[in-house]
Amino acid sequence: MLSSSYRDIRKYTEDLCRPLQTEDYVVQPIVDVSPPKWHLGHTTWFFETFILKDHLDGYQVFNENFNYVFNSYYESVGARVIRTNRGNLSRPTVQEVYQYRQYVDLAMEEIFKDADLAGEICDLLLIGLNHEQQHQELLLTDIKYILGHNPLFPPYEAQIPLKKPEPKGDQAGVLTISEGLYEIGYKGKEFCFDNELNNHFVFLKDFSISRGLISNGEYLEFINAGGYSNFKFWHSEGWEWAKNQYNPAPLYWHKIDGEWFNYTLTGLKPLDLEETLCHINFYEAHAFAEWRGKRLPTEFEWEVAADQLQWGERWEWTESAYLPYPGYKKADGAIGEYNGKFMVNQMVLRGASVATPKNHSRKTYRNFFHPDLKWQFTGIRLAE
Amino acid sequence: MLSSSYRDIRKYTEDLCRPLQTEDYVVQPIVDVSPPKWHLGHTTWFFETFILKDHLDGYQVFNENFNYVFNSYYESVGARVIRTNRGNLSRPTVQEVYQYRQYVDLAMEEIFKDADLAGEICDLLLIGLNHEQQHQELLLTDIKYILGHNPLFPPYEAQIPLKKPEPKGDQAGVLTISEGLYEIGYKGKEFCFDNELNNHFVFLKDFSISRGLISNGEYLEFINAGGYSNFKFWHSEGWEWAKNQYNPAPLYWHKIDGEWFNYTLTGLKPLDLEETLCHINFYEAHAFAEWRGKRLPTEFEWEVAADQLQWGERWEWTESAYLPYPGYKKADGAIGEYNGKFMVNQMVLRGASVATPKNHSRKTYRNFFHPDLKWQFTGIRLAE
Amino acid sequence: MLSSSYRDIRKYTEDLCRPLQTEDYVVQPIVDVSPPKWHLGHTTWFFETFILKDHLDGYQVFNENFNYVFNSYYESVGARVIRTNRGNLSRPTVQEVYQYRQYVDLAMEEIFKDADLAGEICDLLLIGLNHEQQHQELLLTDIKYILGHNPLFPPYEAQIPLKKPEPKGDQAGVLTISEGLYEIGYKGKEFCFDNELNNHFVFLKDFSISRGLISNGEYLEFINAGGYSNFKFWHSEGWEWAKNQYNPAPLYWHKIDGEWFNYTLTGLKPLDLEETLCHINFYEAHAFAEWRGKRLPTEFEWEVAADQLQWGERWEWTESAYLPYPGYKKADGAIGEYNGKFMVNQMVLRGASVATPKNHSRKTYRNFFHPDLKWQFTGIRLAE
Amino acid sequence: MLSSSYRDIRKYTEDLCRPLQTEDYVVQPIVDVSPPKWHLGHTTWFFETFILKDHLDGYQVFNENFNYVFNSYYESVGARVIRTNRGNLSRPTVQEVYQYRQYVDLAMEEIFKDADLAGEICDLLLIGLNHEQQHQELLLTDIKYILGHNPLFPPYEAQIPLKKPEPKGDQAGVLTISEGLYEIGYKGKEFCFDNELNNHFVFLKDFSISRGLISNGEYLEFINAGGYSNFKFWHSEGWEWAKNQYNPAPLYWHKIDGEWFNYTLTGLKPLDLEETLCHINFYEAHAFAEWRGKRLPTEFEWEVAADQLQWGERWEWTESAYLPYPGYKKADGAIGEYNGKFMVNQMVLRGASVATPKNHSRKTYRNFFHPDLKWQFTGIRLAE
Repeated sequence: MLSSSYRDIRKYTEDLCRPLQTEDYVVQPIVDVSPPKWHLGHTTWFFETFILKDHLDGYQVFNENFNYVFNSYYESVGARVIRTNRGNLSRPTVQEVYQYRQYVDLAMEEIFKDADLAGEICDLLLIGLNHEQQHQELLLTDIKYILGHNPLFPPYEAQIPLKKPEPKGDQAGVLTISEGLYEIGYKGKEFCFDNELNNHFVFLKDFSISRGLISNGEYLEFINAGGYSNFKFWHSEGWEWAKNQYNPAPLYWHKIDGEWFNYTLTGLKPLDLEETLCHINFYEAHAFAEWRGKRLPTEFEWEVAADQLQWGERWEWTESAYLPYPGYKKADGAIGEYNGKFMVNQMVLRGASVATPKNHSRKTYRNFFHPDLKWQFTGIRLAE
Repeated sequence: MLSSSYRDIRKYTEDLCRPLQTEDYVVQPIVDVSPPKWHLGHTTWFFETFILKDHLDGYQVFNENFNYVFNSYYESVGARVIRTNRGNLSRPTVQEVYQYRQYVDLAMEEIFKDADLAGEICDLLLIGLNHEQQHQELLLTDIKYILGHNPLFPPYEAQIPLKKPEPKGDQAGVLTISEGLYEIGYKGKEFCFDNELNNHFVFLKDFSISRGLISNGEYLEFINAGGYSNFKFWHSEGWEWAKNQYNPAPLYWHKIDGEWFNYTLTGLKPLDLEETLCHINFYEAHAFAEWRGKRLPTEFEWEVAADQLQWGERWEWTESAYLPYPGYKKADGAIGEYNGKFMVNQMVLRGASVATPKNHSRKTYRNFFHPDLKWQFTGIRLAE
Repeated sequence: MLSSSYRDIRKYTEDLCRPLQTEDYVVQPIVDVSPPKWHLGHTTWFFETFILKDHLDGYQVFNENFNYVFNSYYESVGARVIRTNRGNLSRPTVQEVYQYRQYVDLAMEEIFKDADLAGEICDLLLIGLNHEQQHQELLLTDIKYILGHNPLFPPYEAQIPLKKPEPKGDQAGVLTISEGLYEIGYKGKEFCFDNELNNHFVFLKDFSISRGLISNGEYLEFINAGGYSNFKFWHSEGWEWAKNQYNPAPLYWHKIDGEWFNYTLTGLKPLDLEETLCHINFYEAHAFAEWRGKRLPTEFEWEVAADQLQWGERWEWTESAYLPYPGYKKADGAIGEYNGKFMVNQMVLRGASVATPKNHSRKTYRNFFHPDLKWQFTGIRLAE
Repeated sequence: MLSSSYRDIRKYTEDLCRPLQTEDYVVQPIVDVSPPKWHLGHTTWFFETFILKDHLDGYQVFNENFNYVFNSYYESVGARVIRTNRGNLSRPTVQEVYQYRQYVDLAMEEIFKDADLAGEICDLLLIGLNHEQQHQELLLTDIKYILGHNPLFPPYEAQIPLKKPEPKGDQAGVLTISEGLYEIGYKGKEFCFDNELNNHFVFLKDFSISRGLISNGEYLEFINAGGYSNFKFWHSEGWEWAKNQYNPAPLYWHKIDGEWFNYTLTGLKPLDLEETLCHINFYEAHAFAEWRGKRLPTEFEWEVAADQLQWGERWEWTESAYLPYPGYKKADGAIGEYNGKFMVNQMVLRGASVATPKNHSRKTYRNFFHPDLKWQFTGIRLAE
């Protein structure tokens, strides 16, 4: 039932914010990290703009000016009169944003009263819910960034909120897959994003792929072996990036008096070498693989191997650029701005992470980020 | 009595923040504007660092890490381990900052119990209180910037909190002063800043100076006459600045559907042409004067004329660069970083503004800002 | 015979520079454009560094400091003591650079005296010659940029030096290719770059591809239809790029008093609408295709169709990112820095251009540039 | 006779360029350094634009487009159609620029034929000649920068072209001047710049000023004492500058294998400790003075002491900002852009340097540069 999904997902977003102080909702330490209150408002604005305004008779928008505040990147929807940055906006207050959520949720209940939801509304609802789930993950990554870049290193919660996926067989060794034609892309009947279509064939050569992900300890060997100061492991642009790093290490690692610490959602802790590596960017993932004499898998290899792998702990960088599948079509209107316009200069990540909402990912899901970004829960799986 | 001044001034700072929402304390929309909670903490840190730590036996600092958060620019006091920007810090929370104030205020009462305050402590207290009063003005200018750059244009208070100085004679016409040797700089026995010393002689030629300040209406004439698009009124660097303006007008002026509006602390209002002009930078003040075929006064002319002028509504740009007076000496230690190290590339403003705390200014007071900054309550008085 | 190829290619490089004035050899108007004398020196340095120093007994380098001047991006070869930009270097003079070429060419003749060139030397020679041919094309593109961005618009030569490829059948309509497994990558026995390997299979769906390239006239329609001011045709990053353009049009197009002109190697001319479009970047190519309701071909589609197309007039942007082929291996040592380290954030171009030296390209050749660059002789072929 | 001054000065400019290679005329390694051919053309354009076009009947400009190329910063004179940087312009060639000089010089001879030169023309001529002399000094400083930032360190001339001023008494110790009213500014009948006017009185306290300038050896002590890494000697902005320096030392000093070298116009030489310090900026001069417990003189102190000092070897930084004198008036028209529009954010230097043309300076001459610039022949004289 879409209506109960709606209620569950909307509630879970607010649950994620429960440990926050009001002040934590407001700041934007880097451009990629949005203030939590913006996530709360923006996901709400999505339902208001694409469903309520067009499909609920007599709907009055909560506040005409919120469009300037909570539109993300939809060029089709409204001009902005003041040049703003999200992190500069103290208003609307957190309380007003929660009132906005409540107002929109009440109006959405009117929509749900219609036993027979039009197909168009269902489609928009599905996108809206998946969109909000994407922002749930971003909420966690952004909260981690905000708290983890504060000199007081406040924890998010004392109890760790993130669960690893169920163990699935042995994590040692590699899986070998034979050359052949494989089907790629979504072909089920549930929701998927437009970038997972069309389902199509890809020819792959023999390859092997690791069953396990790289650990903190393994990555520390790379650091200790001078991995950040030897250009030959790096892309040219990666090397420029690496040379300019103040603290060349995974995000949240700090060397204090000769010992490595790691900021986690439960606070600053001594680095756990057994733990799965997290928070490296594509340049680092690629350089690490080169140092090991291996490579990253392509997104196609990953998808073909996925059923035999344990995945879901980290978004796994692939060697694939984010490009359209054959026959890819953007949707019409503002919804069409969702994925296609980002298909340049970004790399694909596959899988899911401990921060991904339950049931939000699938093996055909294509996540994507610029190669220099590392604040997501990213990791490394090797191939050859 | 210093102790009662201390209490009054400390309380007034908090009074100024009363109309704020928690979120308003946190943001830093541009580098020059600090979050209100930072002002609250920094002024407190000043007393803790320079008085309590050195002069109160057994004093325990409130939180060792606050030095990273609330030090402003005192290079002598502590290293920073994470690169932070004030506006990225959600913690300490506003409530914690108020607790910090309370904690320090209580400890200060211990200091005051000593009937016979050492001269050194009195000196530090005086600086600390004057410092906090400077931040009171900055609090208002920064709050105005934060609220006035929000697309919702929230007012600070419904009732105007700022009072103009008492009217003093006719504001029309000019005052003429004859050539001669004049004494400049502070020579009283009360507190003054080091930059007001030494008292010395300056020789001035005949000059005249306007009794009144330029109004919004007069400045609008400059705009309508194309003042922002004619290079010849501008300094070369001012012209570069002007060409890059998105909205070439005083700060907070917005042209909406052909009509001029002005954001004030009581909200967005139609522009009042009779009102005294506010929020222009040195480049604009200079260009306006050139357009009128006049000039700005020097800081020496201003000081000599001050007793015969009504001043205190706007900080008045002068044609004087911020430089040391003859015989100027920096104090030793961190306190010595107060003024001297800024004596390059800034222009002097004289007077006071509606945002200046009562009794905080005097005719020898030297305020200073970079020539491109306009978020202070600045105005124009012409001379020739 | 490699020795005669060497002589021909080396001579042709100098022939290309014959129309230049000494001053034209020196400047570097943007970072992507190198001074012609740098190309002359760098290609020479390549032979000196990788062949003569290692393989000619008793070889004395021409000038020890030239390594700082003529190394391009080979991190393995020498540190730099002064931070230099190529376009800031007046020395060595053009004459000294020609002396350097002569000195190295004489030493290379010693190498050629060995009837039985070692395989390793042959490999390096082949790379060196292909490398110099790549720089021949860059010489023309860079010279065009240097002269075409001079307010005097000097021509390079009165007679057009560039020849179009032989006409091959009708250029109208589209070619249709059926779904299937196709072989991609070089498999001949002549020279190819490492990025053309390994030869492998790719599965393609049915597609059609235009026989002809887009003309200036067709692109002008896009401009006149507001193509540069409608975000919906553009990638998000392309739109950011487009909004910041001073002159949104192909490079070298200037609108003067309402009429379009085009700077060509023979000087500034009225825009020829029949001429094949040139000098657009990937963002523009993609936006144009979107506007037409089509798309750019992938590099694989292009390669499969190539034998049935007339190509060679423009480097054709594809929708493919520059990535390693399956089984790609970098060579060892400095030569290994040639291609692999650029395999991120760049797009593949296929074909060749009027500026490409004869016999330098082939259908498997993979050219690559960042999506915002447009000073190469680039064009658009549509697919769907 | 103005006509013979014209011929001498114009010839001397060309003499200064005689040691250059064609390539040296073209480059612009930083924005402050202009290509020598630009100086040659710009000084010529000045006579063409302000004298020949207005005052020689039937004068045909040499090339209409040269205005885009050789105008410096005169906003009143012509728009630019292509955004150019001087160092990107290979054309006009050096030879064409010399032809331009010859053409204009011939036309100027027509002007001189008029026995009775109009006062207005004489005024423009005087400015034009003083302007060209200013550019003669810039030619030397810019040539030094161009050659001294080349990894081959080519000398300008084997024989040192710069002559120190005649020794004048003992250079040890200080000169003491008593408090009093002193006259400042030019009051002779020869040429002076508008910024030296009006002649006016300044009241000075007692001060002392060093007879000699700081030597390389003295400055090296400052470096070795950690002067560049102790914030307390620096202005706040100076400290930001200092922290970002790649090679914190006077310009042209290089530490190679533990020994200091100094690039001079005769080539790279071991640092001469006895030599007068050169090429430091205002921040460095100020920090050095602070380290010594002294200060820089004001421009007024300098002028009052000048007759009793030996000066002319280095432009001497003063503690004075570049501001208008009382009663300063800009000239009308483009000539009025000469000085006044730079009167913000710059510091005054007094004296002259070994690179200053003979008889070009006088004790009232006010040179000015931004506080971070150091490519002029600048030095330090202390006061207290």
